[in-house]
Amino acid sequence: MSLPPFDNSQMDGYAIHEADVDVISDHRGLTLSVGAPIPAGIEPPDLVQGTAAPIMTGAMIPRHTGAVVPIERVTPAQFYSAADYASGVALTVDLPGTVEPGAFIRRIGSDIAAGTAALTAGTLLGPAQLGLLAACGVATVPVRRPFTVLLLTTGDEVQEPGSTPQPGKIFDANTTLLESALLDAGAAVVRHRLMDDNPALLREAFAAVADSGIHLILTTGGISQGAYEVVKQALANSSVEFLSVAMQPGGPQALGTIGGVPFLGFPGNPVSALVSFEMFLRPALTAVAGTPHPRVALTAALEEEVTSPEAKHQVRRGWYTPRAAAGEALGTVRLVGGPGSHLIHALAESNVLVHLPAGTGCLAAGDLVTVWLVDGVHGAPSFGIPAASLLAVAGPEHS
Amino acid sequence: MSLPPFDNSQMDGYAIHEADVDVISDHRGLTLSVGAPIPAGIEPPDLVQGTAAPIMTGAMIPRHTGAVVPIERVTPAQFYSAADYASGVALTVDLPGTVEPGAFIRRIGSDIAAGTAALTAGTLLGPAQLGLLAACGVATVPVRRPFTVLLLTTGDEVQEPGSTPQPGKIFDANTTLLESALLDAGAAVVRHRLMDDNPALLREAFAAVADSGIHLILTTGGISQGAYEVVKQALANSSVEFLSVAMQPGGPQALGTIGGVPFLGFPGNPVSALVSFEMFLRPALTAVAGTPHPRVALTAALEEEVTSPEAKHQVRRGWYTPRAAAGEALGTVRLVGGPGSHLIHALAESNVLVHLPAGTGCLAAGDLVTVWLVDGVHGAPSFGIPAASLLAVAGPEHS
Repeated sequence: MSLPPFDNSQMDGYAIHEADVDVISDHRGLTLSVGAPIPAGIEPPDLVQGTAAPIMTGAMIPRHTGAVVPIERVTPAQFYSAADYASGVALTVDLPGTVEPGAFIRRIGSDIAAGTAALTAGTLLGPAQLGLLAACGVATVPVRRPFTVLLLTTGDEVQEPGSTPQPGKIFDANTTLLESALLDAGAAVVRHRLMDDNPALLREAFAAVADSGIHLILTTGGISQGAYEVVKQALANSSVEFLSVAMQPGGPQALGTIGGVPFLGFPGNPVSALVSFEMFLRPALTAVAGTPHPRVALTAALEEEVTSPEAKHQVRRGWYTPRAAAGEALGTVRLVGGPGSHLIHALAESNVLVHLPAGTGCLAAGDLVTVWLVDGVHGAPSFGIPAASLLAVAGPEHS
Repeated sequence: MSLPPFDNSQMDGYAIHEADVDVISDHRGLTLSVGAPIPAGIEPPDLVQGTAAPIMTGAMIPRHTGAVVPIERVTPAQFYSAADYASGVALTVDLPGTVEPGAFIRRIGSDIAAGTAALTAGTLLGPAQLGLLAACGVATVPVRRPFTVLLLTTGDEVQEPGSTPQPGKIFDANTTLLESALLDAGAAVVRHRLMDDNPALLREAFAAVADSGIHLILTTGGISQGAYEVVKQALANSSVEFLSVAMQPGGPQALGTIGGVPFLGFPGNPVSALVSFEMFLRPALTAVAGTPHPRVALTAALEEEVTSPEAKHQVRRGWYTPRAAAGEALGTVRLVGGPGSHLIHALAESNVLVHLPAGTGCLAAGDLVTVWLVDGVHGAPSFGIPAASLLAVAGPEHS
């Protein structure tokens, strides 16, 4: 179907006959009889020459209409009431000196013509796209099933959050962190926490993936140089590659397939795992699965001096402060916490990842860096239109 | 609790006794007996002077440890195997010339100390914050209930998507569009489509809100200058204000409370409704309800000349193309579709809202404007680390 599906009025006003449009311009104005009002939602009768039909925004244009004249350009500048119609007095309106033919008529198909593709396959369905489908009368639409990730967290040393702390053990942050990040990126997650570093158990978990509809296996931990690297041990005779990327954190990485299913092994420190996700998996999910939230990259001025290892691409956590208004200088960024891959509290207090590519070395305050927004930044200028009235009404707690 | 919860090793390597750390530096190297390995997850015995204990990343540091020396700085540069231990041969390692006291030990509380607030009330819980809570052993956390919006779509002329098209009627896009936008902004939605422009029915719907837990009533349509404005009629004798904002689209607005519940009335054209949401409601939701996605504002160079009404803040739809790499010129924006408030297909093909504030008038190609990102923009530079390998494995359809 076309959008608009029929010629309709852009304004509340009067529909004028095509012959009268010419007469108005010739005579520099005209007085017409008032016809029956045309609300939105009905199929109006044909317009009769010499009459002006009150017509509402969105209402179907009657046949033989030459233009719509907005109510505020007509005398009187308000519609006649039901009582006026009932009075039996002949109702008239005075029209202005000139009316442009076709004025204030939204033409059928001017947004999209019948027969053209409204959306191409693979389009992410956000509010505007869903609204468009609804406008086209489409109540249901086939979508891809979600990209499903088996998230396997390993580690003898991890224990379930909420359990009693044991000496030498830490609570598992990675399952929660990566599950939330994957969900945010539009993936579905099957979580499986393995607290026993037993390669045989891990191989069993891998084997269960066959024909389960899992699109990707993702592990955390157990891929490094230690003596007890369970993922490495479980995949010792497989085609999975264990490699070192010139990135900090997140250097140790594993990549391959297991039984034909793509496999990624991320390092076990929480910040390493999240940085690995943002650098390698989120961009792939965006491309493969059309997921909604690729990172926005901004250039920001450093608030302080910073040093990074020359040979590595370092990813630090930072707090980005946007410029106060359009046209002002760039936003600025300060680092939050050190480079350590275990600093999850610092991660939770940051709103950007700060990229210091290999070869960067030392940067001075004011030097420019690329940052990726990882959390909402309250940077939208208000343009002087306050939203404060609503806040005052609703109060801060809306309890 | 503190994070880390105990001193632990930053590397796979050898734990060295505090007395031996001094000896090593004095003697420019030292050979030590190899003690029992310390995996992550156990509480190790105290370290004995003269022995080096193999210790894994994240493992608890034994008492009297002076430093950890990474495995790659030790000779041999690989851990002894179980067979080596079983052989009965005395195992030793040669340590490097100097070891800095405290090296490669992550100290208890260096991320967050016990007794400090991990997160303040009102913090939005994203992946990093949820990960932090998990790391602290917190399995459940009290959260605010969602900000709940009653979404009331009005209009005699609208019909339900999926029904048979009737002459003069259009399919309701606003319910779908605004529900999706509200959900995206973190609100909960109760939807109610009123296809009969009957003020009494609308007043009934308003009355049902009392004590229902609704935080905001939002209507679309029925607030303009026409003869059949159902929202205006239903609220004729209320404190709700009907006003005109110098904005295009989205000029007609209604604002107030109904029975103490905040009320907003947006205009009925889909693009007007969405622009009203982005300008007035999303910022308020961010502030009131701590919802996740305030718009990111960027400065972009116009790809073409543009004219806007001098007296109004015009919001156009556009396609933003980010700069190709950090340090290059600003991103650019071209307009998508005209200014018409009914152009929902154009809206669905845009990725930014383009702001042309009052007083703008005519701008030339290359002039700078503020744009708000409303959809994912594939602007993240790759830093030369390709994600293509995963794509090749998974294929574009992941069916």
